Amino acid sequence: MEKSEVKAILNAVAKGEMSTDEALLKLRMEPFEELGFAKPDIHRAVRQGIPEVIYGAGKTPEQIMAITAALLKNGQKTVLITRLSPESAEYVKKEIDIKYYNEARIGVAGDIPVPDTEGTVLIVTGGTSDIPVAEEAAVTAEMLGNKVNRLYDVGVAGIHRLLSHTEDIMAAKVIVAVAGMEGALASVVGGLADCPVIAVPTSVGYGASFGGVSALLSMLNSCASGVSVVNIDNGFGAGYIASMINHIGGK
Amino acid sequence: MEKSEVKAILNAVAKGEMSTDEALLKLRMEPFEELGFAKPDIHRAVRQGIPEVIYGAGKTPEQIMAITAALLKNGQKTVLITRLSPESAEYVKKEIDIKYYNEARIGVAGDIPVPDTEGTVLIVTGGTSDIPVAEEAAVTAEMLGNKVNRLYDVGVAGIHRLLSHTEDIMAAKVIVAVAGMEGALASVVGGLADCPVIAVPTSVGYGASFGGVSALLSMLNSCASGVSVVNIDNGFGAGYIASMINHIGGK
Amino acid sequence: MEKSEVKAILNAVAKGEMSTDEALLKLRMEPFEELGFAKPDIHRAVRQGIPEVIYGAGKTPEQIMAITAALLKNGQKTVLITRLSPESAEYVKKEIDIKYYNEARIGVAGDIPVPDTEGTVLIVTGGTSDIPVAEEAAVTAEMLGNKVNRLYDVGVAGIHRLLSHTEDIMAAKVIVAVAGMEGALASVVGGLADCPVIAVPTSVGYGASFGGVSALLSMLNSCASGVSVVNIDNGFGAGYIASMINHIGGK
Amino acid sequence: MEKSEVKAILNAVAKGEMSTDEALLKLRMEPFEELGFAKPDIHRAVRQGIPEVIYGAGKTPEQIMAITAALLKNGQKTVLITRLSPESAEYVKKEIDIKYYNEARIGVAGDIPVPDTEGTVLIVTGGTSDIPVAEEAAVTAEMLGNKVNRLYDVGVAGIHRLLSHTEDIMAAKVIVAVAGMEGALASVVGGLADCPVIAVPTSVGYGASFGGVSALLSMLNSCASGVSVVNIDNGFGAGYIASMINHIGGK
Amino acid sequence: MEKSEVKAILNAVAKGEMSTDEALLKLRMEPFEELGFAKPDIHRAVRQGIPEVIYGAGKTPEQIMAITAALLKNGQKTVLITRLSPESAEYVKKEIDIKYYNEARIGVAGDIPVPDTEGTVLIVTGGTSDIPVAEEAAVTAEMLGNKVNRLYDVGVAGIHRLLSHTEDIMAAKVIVAVAGMEGALASVVGGLADCPVIAVPTSVGYGASFGGVSALLSMLNSCASGVSVVNIDNGFGAGYIASMINHIGGK
Amino acid sequence: MEKSEVKAILNAVAKGEMSTDEALLKLRMEPFEELGFAKPDIHRAVRQGIPEVIYGAGKTPEQIMAITAALLKNGQKTVLITRLSPESAEYVKKEIDIKYYNEARIGVAGDIPVPDTEGTVLIVTGGTSDIPVAEEAAVTAEMLGNKVNRLYDVGVAGIHRLLSHTEDIMAAKVIVAVAGMEGALASVVGGLADCPVIAVPTSVGYGASFGGVSALLSMLNSCASGVSVVNIDNGFGAGYIASMINHIGGK
Amino acid sequence: MEKSEVKAILNAVAKGEMSTDEALLKLRMEPFEELGFAKPDIHRAVRQGIPEVIYGAGKTPEQIMAITAALLKNGQKTVLITRLSPESAEYVKKEIDIKYYNEARIGVAGDIPVPDTEGTVLIVTGGTSDIPVAEEAAVTAEMLGNKVNRLYDVGVAGIHRLLSHTEDIMAAKVIVAVAGMEGALASVVGGLADCPVIAVPTSVGYGASFGGVSALLSMLNSCASGVSVVNIDNGFGAGYIASMINHIGGK
Amino acid sequence: MEKSEVKAILNAVAKGEMSTDEALLKLRMEPFEELGFAKPDIHRAVRQGIPEVIYGAGKTPEQIMAITAALLKNGQKTVLITRLSPESAEYVKKEIDIKYYNEARIGVAGDIPVPDTEGTVLIVTGGTSDIPVAEEAAVTAEMLGNKVNRLYDVGVAGIHRLLSHTEDIMAAKVIVAVAGMEGALASVVGGLADCPVIAVPTSVGYGASFGGVSALLSMLNSCASGVSVVNIDNGFGAGYIASMINHIGGK
Repeated sequence: MEKSEVKAILNAVAKGEMSTDEALLKLRMEPFEELGFAKPDIHRAVRQGIPEVIYGAGKTPEQIMAITAALLKNGQKTVLITRLSPESAEYVKKEIDIKYYNEARIGVAGDIPVPDTEGTVLIVTGGTSDIPVAEEAAVTAEMLGNKVNRLYDVGVAGIHRLLSHTEDIMAAKVIVAVAGMEGALASVVGGLADCPVIAVPTSVGYGASFGGVSALLSMLNSCASGVSVVNIDNGFGAGYIASMINHIGGK
Repeated sequence: MEKSEVKAILNAVAKGEMSTDEALLKLRMEPFEELGFAKPDIHRAVRQGIPEVIYGAGKTPEQIMAITAALLKNGQKTVLITRLSPESAEYVKKEIDIKYYNEARIGVAGDIPVPDTEGTVLIVTGGTSDIPVAEEAAVTAEMLGNKVNRLYDVGVAGIHRLLSHTEDIMAAKVIVAVAGMEGALASVVGGLADCPVIAVPTSVGYGASFGGVSALLSMLNSCASGVSVVNIDNGFGAGYIASMINHIGGK
Repeated sequence: MEKSEVKAILNAVAKGEMSTDEALLKLRMEPFEELGFAKPDIHRAVRQGIPEVIYGAGKTPEQIMAITAALLKNGQKTVLITRLSPESAEYVKKEIDIKYYNEARIGVAGDIPVPDTEGTVLIVTGGTSDIPVAEEAAVTAEMLGNKVNRLYDVGVAGIHRLLSHTEDIMAAKVIVAVAGMEGALASVVGGLADCPVIAVPTSVGYGASFGGVSALLSMLNSCASGVSVVNIDNGFGAGYIASMINHIGGK
Repeated sequence: MEKSEVKAILNAVAKGEMSTDEALLKLRMEPFEELGFAKPDIHRAVRQGIPEVIYGAGKTPEQIMAITAALLKNGQKTVLITRLSPESAEYVKKEIDIKYYNEARIGVAGDIPVPDTEGTVLIVTGGTSDIPVAEEAAVTAEMLGNKVNRLYDVGVAGIHRLLSHTEDIMAAKVIVAVAGMEGALASVVGGLADCPVIAVPTSVGYGASFGGVSALLSMLNSCASGVSVVNIDNGFGAGYIASMINHIGGK
Repeated sequence: MEKSEVKAILNAVAKGEMSTDEALLKLRMEPFEELGFAKPDIHRAVRQGIPEVIYGAGKTPEQIMAITAALLKNGQKTVLITRLSPESAEYVKKEIDIKYYNEARIGVAGDIPVPDTEGTVLIVTGGTSDIPVAEEAAVTAEMLGNKVNRLYDVGVAGIHRLLSHTEDIMAAKVIVAVAGMEGALASVVGGLADCPVIAVPTSVGYGASFGGVSALLSMLNSCASGVSVVNIDNGFGAGYIASMINHIGGK
Repeated sequence: MEKSEVKAILNAVAKGEMSTDEALLKLRMEPFEELGFAKPDIHRAVRQGIPEVIYGAGKTPEQIMAITAALLKNGQKTVLITRLSPESAEYVKKEIDIKYYNEARIGVAGDIPVPDTEGTVLIVTGGTSDIPVAEEAAVTAEMLGNKVNRLYDVGVAGIHRLLSHTEDIMAAKVIVAVAGMEGALASVVGGLADCPVIAVPTSVGYGASFGGVSALLSMLNSCASGVSVVNIDNGFGAGYIASMINHIGGK
Repeated sequence: MEKSEVKAILNAVAKGEMSTDEALLKLRMEPFEELGFAKPDIHRAVRQGIPEVIYGAGKTPEQIMAITAALLKNGQKTVLITRLSPESAEYVKKEIDIKYYNEARIGVAGDIPVPDTEGTVLIVTGGTSDIPVAEEAAVTAEMLGNKVNRLYDVGVAGIHRLLSHTEDIMAAKVIVAVAGMEGALASVVGGLADCPVIAVPTSVGYGASFGGVSALLSMLNSCASGVSVVNIDNGFGAGYIASMINHIGGK
Repeated sequence: MEKSEVKAILNAVAKGEMSTDEALLKLRMEPFEELGFAKPDIHRAVRQGIPEVIYGAGKTPEQIMAITAALLKNGQKTVLITRLSPESAEYVKKEIDIKYYNEARIGVAGDIPVPDTEGTVLIVTGGTSDIPVAEEAAVTAEMLGNKVNRLYDVGVAGIHRLLSHTEDIMAAKVIVAVAGMEGALASVVGGLADCPVIAVPTSVGYGASFGGVSALLSMLNSCASGVSVVNIDNGFGAGYIASMINHIGGK
């Protein structure tokens, strides 16, 4: 609870404009209660004009539709639904007009935002199998108002593929590096870039990749400065952080 | 290698100002070779006016002194030495005037930078035992030209301590959250803040903390958006990334 | 075997009321043998008026029905069946009148107990995905005669949701904190509460949540005193312990 | 922050007895700030008459002495210092009269409390090597006003040793079961007891005991209901929870 | 290769009864080659009158039938097929008369052996869910000529169930202890018994049982002497070793 | 990028045969771009006459067919498709004539190479369940122009089976040792052989084999010199390295 | 408690030779209580003529001496002290005449037993570094009345060393296989032997041997039947079990 | 045992030149027995002219000296002692003239070999901290008769350092890639090279590097073909395999 709000309430009480009971109530009244129903799995409250995000995994199509409808009715311009299965997307489409991004498994209801910053978020992947996670990051960033540049399948075993795009790397304001298996991409990109790199390990691989653990450890141990890491397959999280960073310093 | 440099060399060749052999040499000549000696463990090349960083762990005092001297002689204004033991610091001080930050275990040779950005890097810790790692982050950020705000010992088991500083959290441009044991601080701070949070797990704890693994996993699984993670005890890395982010958008 | 029983038998032998062979038999005769059939997976013997508990996982519907019937015939007033699939519940319902709690996956045969204590067991969850485990705890506690207060979806990334219910936390006699992902809820609740907190990690999450291990480690490393932990997804165990604690000191 | 306190402040503002600025300050003023110095590692605030607890590990003797002195000066009747090395104890003794419990590695300054409840906390261990952890639990419980019964070296490989003390187990209001190696003690005690069992895995053992992990997993998987677990070697935590439970229902 | 065989061949060469080439061939000719086809997964060669064992997992019904037929034709009196699915058993039955043990998932072709030793192999389990693994051990031991005594569902959480069968434990020549979850059964039985105990962890359980790892670690750390351990769910291995031990000292 | 190519371009610029812009373009133009479409998952570029390799896992039949067709059209004589499901193979066969190796799950389009070296690659397995991985290695090596000798089901529990083939081991130029469970085969073969041994752990086994981890650790800890290890189930990688080694020294 | 003892007590009560109170006392009176002092860490009670065993690790020299003296005074002929440091041995020798086995780190007080069985316990090791653990097993077995045959440094990387001792392996009644690193010895010996093999992983090795875990997993996954496993470095346990087996069937 | 040797013995028996008993003895007589003393930890027997290798870790200086002396006396031209501490080296030097390589921790007695092949073994490291392991590989390879090229501190975070040495990579016949932390070096080198790459993870790093596990997993998951892996810090093993490969195809 921010200081200014508390002060406003206190002032109202001091002026007799508000009873102490009302004030007490006010102090404990939370924005999330105004929706009138539970807010399951919604990623932290965000402000006017910025998409509200629903984490679709583990929700029924009915629940997703209900929450989406409530948010739109509540004045939300854009609603982002992550981890949305094609089946659930079909169901929601019956009632609400959503755009479904197949590879990203993201649905968007309401307005599709246009980029509101000059900077570019660059998304790179090691292989083609990492693309679904990369697309989750890319579409998330786009829906949060970013220009996104995609550079896929530039894994380090063929380092020339990555190096031929050095300009893209130098031009980015923030980079999301998505890789499975040995996860070395984050280190090489981190060494080439001047900007923050958000590394996303993916569960791509077999045997001793242990569902993404190998890539995760690689990225955490990156010898390149400027690399931080999110959870395995967490494309949304990376796209969200990239957007935060890309919006610093205004347009 | 950047495009403009390559083009300049090619132009020189085209104009006959440079032989093909010279050009070939040039194209493979690297800045790091100009030092005339190996560059062990130096964290990626950084530009004029920005501190060069030496990773002191596993280096002899003699090596540290030699590299520091070479860098200063080479025109480097500030040299940052991380993971520098008090003993090595004493040794280096015999020849070079360094300032030693005891808790951070960082030595600085040359000029102490003044903040060159308006934004503030906020460093929070869960307990007092996390302070050495936090100081590594804080001093790193300060030496890279940032204003740093410290908020220590505000662990989640006494949530009121953290909440009484909500203003500091709202005012930060980027936050470094340092915590051992259950590492919950990152999630709570991530939920309160609007800016990127760099989480640093520490090896503080015993038993099932497994040398920081428990805190690391907690932070990777943070339910708050906007949290990314660096290696256990990697205060330097967090401070470095925080500085990168804090410098976005210029002053 | 309790001292008084042994003494009674010895007295009977001393008085010639019982032969030594009978006594020997008696000393080895166990209550569980009186059922006349194996007691697979029944959670420890409990006394008259308290529900007998059957662990339904890994049992055929036929076995569950047979054990339930035997227990009821044996004079058991209430029989609790945990980890009961909807299919098995349907099967059992053909012969025995059971009430099935869908989310908790618990079936109850016989009388539904009314609360027999003043104190309240508070069940809190981090997210909506933790609700099935929470309900297993809640229904277990209710069937063991407790008043239960539910406080769901108050995860630490939106700490205000939890703080707006501080009164519920202060009013509880014992709390069950159910959370997956980073499991930070237990620490925050433990820091706010004055009573014992039973933490239940859930297998909710993906990637580095490792099926609940991340939450488990978090909870074991809680910096809040008063927090103890049960197995991942073990809602029953938490509800059982909570009931034990809530019944201390009588009504 | 409790409702009544907030209401009192609001009332004072309404009556003009307090300015809004003062009220704002008040609302953010925390008990811990009254100490006038940082409260590093102090286990959650506890009320008048109950010992304040300092976690001694990782603190210098000077820090421990300073915090202890401050607490005593502040009116604290009893101060408990856990994980206190004999060397630090010697240092503190120079200035402050503390009683040092050697095996428990606990120091106590101020009054030694007398039991204020009828119920008994039973501490059992599997072997003699588990005794230091058990003593940490036992002395903690005693300093928090509990009667403590010790039953050491009753590991399950010689089950008759444990069974010959069934009466002690039946008589306890809460049990702390301390064991390393295979940690089976918790299950057997849990099966014999009617009261909550707090299991403490210890790092005693070698090879595949993995510093207490084997015992920890055993205890988490206990087939006995009523068993919850704390961190490896966390005797303090177990003693604290046991005291909480033992004090339920008043005397 | 045994000394006597080698000597016989050498003698034949010395006497001119065998050429050096024939001898060379002989020395490298192996019993397993006489079958004329590959011997996939057959558990080590055993002598006349003792069942040959086929590991059925990962073999097609056709392969199992072919190997079984070959062995029987080769003079093998009894053929034991472990990890045999009901479907494969049905297939094999079309051509070969086998007896199928449902719970043990073992098929037996040829003669069913009668016990050829006086001693008894005792199989104990912690719960009913452990019975399939226990039956694999039991049927294996029976097919290898042992008397087997079964004592199921005597887990340590209800220690009286186990103690009421102390006589069975004292009477056994070797014990197989089968348990999942916390695996404490092995320690308690090991403490009661005078004979070797083969512990079999099972994958029964959930959460932190990690597919049998918890029970495995428990058993390896048993504080009872006389306990050795086989792989998770390896009922066959335990039954085989038990038979080896039970046959020592002849009848 | 190789020195000679760079020099050639520079020479052309020097002679005015190429503009600096063209040169710049050339320097960044990569062979892989000439294909005119993305190169997903293709195992590193190899030269004329050597099969191009497509990693089939995670690709749609359509993608596999498209890439194969493109490569053949591009002049590639042989195309190797690993991890190709029978279903995908059927699909591809509709348009392109491929030979499908069932156990190896490899498809080959274009010419089947004949061995172009004298040396032999020996593939050994511990059991029959390891054969699919072994065949992946064997067919890979054959398609890369090697003579392959197979020696299957010679696990160390029946060491005579392995020893009767000592000659094969001595005759090999490089050995691929494929084993699951305890993975001891690599050590024993390594001790018998004079040539490099590539060890491939397989995910064959159950319980504490942990999906190949046990075999992997065994092989990494081999006390035999000359043994190196690839990922669990990575038959392709082992066959590829074996071919590299077998081709050293020409024919 | 054995049936006959209970019956005797009951008979005495029936005949009036014993009061019920005396009987009750008797039934709970345990041999270990007769020692008059705590029995810390003594490996299970064993009968007259068989050494009592003290686990020396974690005991002070004073404690060891006191327990040893008490046991000898109590009529114990031989006392075995395992994990006894040379320093503690020196201390104990001041008062009690003990024989100290340096490599085994075992001390023996009282009579040195002579073998009382015909059978031989064979102890094999993979390397020389495994010898201390092997000697713990060997001396334990000798002190329990067994003939012991040692076969050291016969690791599988030089399989001929092991094979040249096939006779020893065939002649043993039970084998203890001690190995670190990849632990393959147990499988190879298990394949050659007809008798039970007790495998002891050792913590010898580095890197991915993980303090014996690699060897432990290898041994648990042994493809040879007849192999069971004890804890890492548990030579005592293996020697104890080997003695149990070797004594079956009398002399 | 090789076929030719066996045949020679058989021929001698056939001709009456050797008795059957002598032959039997001969067949079991092993080269290692001719040394007349135990061969602890010697890395597999190698032929005339090739250094014998002693693994120095865990051996006393006296043992090392004795084995070295015996080998030299036995006609061995060069003896390599790995993992030799400076202290042990000093001790051995008293009696035997050895050359000690400080960083590699290797001692060499007898002749220092000269390269006997044309091919070059390239050793690359990621950082300077990896140099000791790299030197173990390098000196091993040199002592086995190889030309060695060292390329140190070319980690992937500064990819230009590595790329400026592409020629060295292309010129090597076999490469040893040594790296800790994220271990990405192996993949990048593997992608640039045409020859086999032996990857050596090092225990360099902290936190989530887990003593080399992170680098190990990275290397096992390398997306570059041609990479195989040895144990953490196993420089000797890598140098040995590199030498094997480098010697293929003669000079």
